Amino acid sequence: MIVEKKIFALPEFRTSGGALIKNVRVGWESYGRLNADRSNAILIAHYFSGTSHAAGRYTTEDVFPGYWDALIGPGKAIDTERYFVLSSDTLVNLNARDPQVVTTGPATIDPATGKPYGLSFPLVTIGDFVAAQKALVDHLGIRRLHAVMGPSMGGLQTLAWAVAYPEMMERIVPVICAGEIDAWLTAWLGLWAAPIMADPAWQGGAYVAEAQPLAGLTLALKLITLQANHWLWTDAQFGRAYADPGANPADALGNSFKVEATVAAIAAERAKISDSNHLLYLVKANQTFAAGPSGTLADLETIRARTLLLYSPEDQVFRAERARATAAAIAKGDAPVEVAEIHGPFGHANGLFAIAPLGEKIRAFLAR
Amino acid sequence: MIVEKKIFALPEFRTSGGALIKNVRVGWESYGRLNADRSNAILIAHYFSGTSHAAGRYTTEDVFPGYWDALIGPGKAIDTERYFVLSSDTLVNLNARDPQVVTTGPATIDPATGKPYGLSFPLVTIGDFVAAQKALVDHLGIRRLHAVMGPSMGGLQTLAWAVAYPEMMERIVPVICAGEIDAWLTAWLGLWAAPIMADPAWQGGAYVAEAQPLAGLTLALKLITLQANHWLWTDAQFGRAYADPGANPADALGNSFKVEATVAAIAAERAKISDSNHLLYLVKANQTFAAGPSGTLADLETIRARTLLLYSPEDQVFRAERARATAAAIAKGDAPVEVAEIHGPFGHANGLFAIAPLGEKIRAFLAR
Repeated sequence: MIVEKKIFALPEFRTSGGALIKNVRVGWESYGRLNADRSNAILIAHYFSGTSHAAGRYTTEDVFPGYWDALIGPGKAIDTERYFVLSSDTLVNLNARDPQVVTTGPATIDPATGKPYGLSFPLVTIGDFVAAQKALVDHLGIRRLHAVMGPSMGGLQTLAWAVAYPEMMERIVPVICAGEIDAWLTAWLGLWAAPIMADPAWQGGAYVAEAQPLAGLTLALKLITLQANHWLWTDAQFGRAYADPGANPADALGNSFKVEATVAAIAAERAKISDSNHLLYLVKANQTFAAGPSGTLADLETIRARTLLLYSPEDQVFRAERARATAAAIAKGDAPVEVAEIHGPFGHANGLFAIAPLGEKIRAFLAR
Repeated sequence: MIVEKKIFALPEFRTSGGALIKNVRVGWESYGRLNADRSNAILIAHYFSGTSHAAGRYTTEDVFPGYWDALIGPGKAIDTERYFVLSSDTLVNLNARDPQVVTTGPATIDPATGKPYGLSFPLVTIGDFVAAQKALVDHLGIRRLHAVMGPSMGGLQTLAWAVAYPEMMERIVPVICAGEIDAWLTAWLGLWAAPIMADPAWQGGAYVAEAQPLAGLTLALKLITLQANHWLWTDAQFGRAYADPGANPADALGNSFKVEATVAAIAAERAKISDSNHLLYLVKANQTFAAGPSGTLADLETIRARTLLLYSPEDQVFRAERARATAAAIAKGDAPVEVAEIHGPFGHANGLFAIAPLGEKIRAFLAR
């Protein structure tokens, strides 16, 4: 499945905080065809470090497809012969330097100065991400979505969608997420941001594109990479292996273990296409997430959409008991709620890398 | 109980890696009196960020006593009317700038240059910490210890003691630790070190005392503080409270939550007395920990000492299943092994802050 990035532009966007952003542009992709009465659309919202590239490949040479390609495609659980699947880059998307990503945030050039907005860009919320998606959906003439779904921060957007526009979707599938952010996750999110702000190259956010705080950004991405995974992965995959078989870590301060080198390599690769200020804005949006006015699970009782909530018992970002409490909160309202577990060695990232076995459950849920 | 810091000096110390360090000095404390046949000594080994201050106060004005004061003292579980309890600062102790700590490491002035050793100081191991303690015990004329015990890295030292000198103690109490370091903990330890090395002020370890990489060190201590604790603490203690009740975190990038501000304040306080290079050396010692020649749990089968192993089910540094596997490995040998759980809201730090309820079990174990 070859896919193409499209651009959705809004001349003006008013944030939930009241700020006005001009010329908002976000990238989006779609898979499958919108039917005549525009009733077969499924919206996918992406995770913290994800993009709108949920499925397919841009060219036949692409090594990796979109992140939920195991689910989305012709004949797959989210069947693109049946559904029109769409997905957009959020505002302040982390991968602002990925040529396939179109987003608007601190790294965007402020036409008034010719320089990146930096910290003059207004703070945005998960609700703002949803509002931008809503504008895209409206623009496409879709009045009601067959489903809204997504993993992690995509699950937060899914819940915010269902609270903000309870009549606009028939179903939701929030995956590896929760209806509120607890103090533990708040603190960890803050520590993901901290290395960037500790890096002198950050310059209070006023760095130029060529000189972003790469050391801090890379360290932030190491923390994220490790925390979103699990010891079932590291212990089975790396054990006590050295980064360099000939360089015993006990022999020199600079000699490291393979697990460290692998996490470092993943982070360095991700840092190349990431923007540091965007990471800070994403942390803020997640820390202050509120699915509705109260910011607590009580907001979820107003959800009307039939719900399939998926979580991983091994998740160390959104913990299992928080996911179950989220399902229970939705079930207090009118919506029927179904819950299923995702099993795999990747912890939180099971919602990305171990989602395939849930395909049939998702297929059946979408068809009901 | 008023205690006094003493200094133990070794003109020469040969590391397990073969390096020679001259003029090694470590601080130590003792509580209670050594009996006539020198058979009532209990050695306490300290944790990663701990010191020899296991109990008592230096002055009546001290706000906090030593970390295991709940256990150690007259009439307490480790009864100083019965036992002579001693504890020493490790080599490369983190709290090198605490006036009550005496240690030898990269922050020590190299008499050959008049500057801190920095990275010219040789790498040291948990086994080296034990060897320095052994020299102190020998110096005191103690031929056999009533017990060796300690939490976390102190538990690693306890296991290394029991493997290295199986006839030298009657009992061991390894607490919140494991007999080997897995890939997951190895990676996290590496991320504790990373902020220091990412800080330009680190200068490849060649900073002067007045200009250590404080931002990196503080961030490292934030990571350690949070990871050694638990959401049962953060969620109950802080919830969604703001750092400043008048400054909603949603309103400005710099506005934070109370949990973040508290972790930051703890880390900043700890950073004042910590040394950055010492932290790196401690990380290396822990990553490369080996209780015996193989570095695996098989080493533990040679332990002869009666064992009481304590762990916390909520521990996110040394996980419960690793602790239980450690107990099982010791039990494969000749040593009788007893296991008990520490319950509390502090995760790994339950071994420090929630140890009191284990007092009677420890008292009985020491008396048997």
